[in-house]
Amino acid sequence: MSTAVPVEETTEAVADLLRIAEPGDRLLGAAVAQLGAAEARDRIVAPRSDDVEAVLHAAGIHGLEASGAAAALAVERWRTRRAELDAARDLRIMARLGARLLVPGDADWPRGLDDLGLDAPLGLWARGPGSLARLCSGSVALVGSRAADDYGIHLAKSLAFDAVGAGRTVLSGGAYGIDAAAHTAALVGAHGASHGGTDGGVGAGGAGTVAFMAGGVDRFYPRGNDALLSRIAEDWIVVSEAPPGGTAMRHRFLLRNRIIAACAAATVVVQAGWRSGAINTANRAAELLRPVGAVPGPVTSTSSAGCHRLIREGAAVLITGYADLAELVDDIDPTAGRANEDAQAPLRATDDLSTEELRVYSALPTRRGAEISALAVRAGLDPRTAMATVAGLELAGLARRGDHGWTKARP
Amino acid sequence: MSTAVPVEETTEAVADLLRIAEPGDRLLGAAVAQLGAAEARDRIVAPRSDDVEAVLHAAGIHGLEASGAAAALAVERWRTRRAELDAARDLRIMARLGARLLVPGDADWPRGLDDLGLDAPLGLWARGPGSLARLCSGSVALVGSRAADDYGIHLAKSLAFDAVGAGRTVLSGGAYGIDAAAHTAALVGAHGASHGGTDGGVGAGGAGTVAFMAGGVDRFYPRGNDALLSRIAEDWIVVSEAPPGGTAMRHRFLLRNRIIAACAAATVVVQAGWRSGAINTANRAAELLRPVGAVPGPVTSTSSAGCHRLIREGAAVLITGYADLAELVDDIDPTAGRANEDAQAPLRATDDLSTEELRVYSALPTRRGAEISALAVRAGLDPRTAMATVAGLELAGLARRGDHGWTKARP
Repeated sequence: MSTAVPVEETTEAVADLLRIAEPGDRLLGAAVAQLGAAEARDRIVAPRSDDVEAVLHAAGIHGLEASGAAAALAVERWRTRRAELDAARDLRIMARLGARLLVPGDADWPRGLDDLGLDAPLGLWARGPGSLARLCSGSVALVGSRAADDYGIHLAKSLAFDAVGAGRTVLSGGAYGIDAAAHTAALVGAHGASHGGTDGGVGAGGAGTVAFMAGGVDRFYPRGNDALLSRIAEDWIVVSEAPPGGTAMRHRFLLRNRIIAACAAATVVVQAGWRSGAINTANRAAELLRPVGAVPGPVTSTSSAGCHRLIREGAAVLITGYADLAELVDDIDPTAGRANEDAQAPLRATDDLSTEELRVYSALPTRRGAEISALAVRAGLDPRTAMATVAGLELAGLARRGDHGWTKARP
Repeated sequence: MSTAVPVEETTEAVADLLRIAEPGDRLLGAAVAQLGAAEARDRIVAPRSDDVEAVLHAAGIHGLEASGAAAALAVERWRTRRAELDAARDLRIMARLGARLLVPGDADWPRGLDDLGLDAPLGLWARGPGSLARLCSGSVALVGSRAADDYGIHLAKSLAFDAVGAGRTVLSGGAYGIDAAAHTAALVGAHGASHGGTDGGVGAGGAGTVAFMAGGVDRFYPRGNDALLSRIAEDWIVVSEAPPGGTAMRHRFLLRNRIIAACAAATVVVQAGWRSGAINTANRAAELLRPVGAVPGPVTSTSSAGCHRLIREGAAVLITGYADLAELVDDIDPTAGRANEDAQAPLRATDDLSTEELRVYSALPTRRGAEISALAVRAGLDPRTAMATVAGLELAGLARRGDHGWTKARP
């Protein structure tokens, strides 16, 4: 984003852009990356479209495969919403609710979002006193089915409570079932840990909970979770890409999931059936090379079928309780828990790893060793590549060969 | 084994050797590999021990690391049982029970046992009409805790029944709990599949069940499973390394496990706590590079903790039902996994929609119709794309054009 543009102007432009396009519009992401938010917005709303098309076309050459025709269509698509734009009004409405618009580059912008590349949100409406960046650092996403049973609800509460007790913020989607159970237990746990809170709200420090919505943060969805979401907005933070009044449409839930996956240090599917949206969140997290866990359940019920599938496919590690979850986060990010104090992340031994190396490193168990064949399956690599990669990790002092196979060597 | 020695002599020698040493005695395995069973037995029972020591020492050089002193101790150890030897009596007792002694090289000797190397049993007492080699081919071992709960018992029965129905013999350890449930259901399934059986016993062909005992096959252990084990011995086969009268001692259970692991094409731990002997069987199977599976359960109960551990450590694949088990054994068959998915998840009409189609579908009202322009705004698409997309949805039977515009057409 151009540094010549004043902050306020950028904020207003982003407010417009969030209204102009649906979340995850890569063409708009490319345009903003090229022009900056203000310039992109101005050219979209201007009567002539040639400039935008040219820029989009140039961006398309770098990986988007967008033809000039596609670019023209995109501009046409965005312009259908031109009449609705009124950034000042949006910002006014949201300010009245204690919400502000975060944009990339803000101190409060979660660094994990950068991993989304052109899929990254252009901005996030954030309602509540919490610092989103600080809360997301070392956080865990606990997601799952709306139609959760007693077993799933119990697990969600227990994991969330323990996570907050250990200083980790719980991210979830604000829905019924697993989401609500996780948020609720996190609120209880955070309240206990805060020793009564301060004037500035409990959310001013420590671990809490963040709800990521598919619709606007001015109208909570589902309505039945209104009290819960209001409490989160009061003490912590409720977040969404959707503009004020934006409705929670089906595709927006799927796009919202990428933000949860990118903001969390690890994602755990607590309980999910075969088709739960939580599986989508887990897959997005896996694509981002974030650690993913899933809690198993009885195979005689379909409620955990999605979790079992993720574990079977090697997309998720089996989680039996908070200790496993902590191990999952620590594996990748040994500083995550402490990041609240250290604003600047110190250099890590794993920082310079290639994608393959990171995959194998993530797949290495901490305790009982794994054979190359098992490692290859977990890392999703062929055995020969896994073998070569783990040998490189051993040279780097990150892997160790024991009696029972390969384990992590703590740097 | 020397081919110059007559079969009968070898059989008698093996009967003695099974009495002389405990199962899995690698030094005796080395001696037999060097000398043949008859010669090894003769030298052990002869008054002078120098020959045996020399041979053992030579064998030690090839990987056993047995010093001359260790060899002398081994011979001394074996000779403590010299007075008990009476192979002719052992064979007579067992023959009266319908049992015979299988030795390596027999047509009925399971080929999988060769993978045990020097740990391979020297012989196996087999009681029952079944062909051990044929039954073990493509078989699955279903193992687990004695202290199984209703969930585990249900799983064991269901997996065993389906396995036998698919033509796979079920191997297990004859114990209470998971073992007994697996054997019982396999008997029921095999009976159903045999269409009444033949004069030669049902076990003459097809899939059934084999019980691997830690004690002698002349005295069933545990006593409470006497009726079950008798039935297996009548129709199929009960197997053990232990000589007649041999008691089921603790270390013999662990050594018995290696035989189950080696005989089965795949091993599945149905339900097992943290310290169950079934974990040992699974680890032996993994060491032999046999596929290993484990069925998960609620993490809130400790009954499946061993299964969860195996899955977490990458030693076992998560198994949710027989389809997964079949895939494990026969991972050459790529259709197995899809069959499972189909069984669990019926196809939905919206499954194959593109992102744009899903956006438009989500934007379609269910009752009062919407015009293309309104649809385009809701879906965030340009009108032309919205029009093309909704036309495609109409062809797929998902959208309907009414008097007032477009609505969803319920599939």
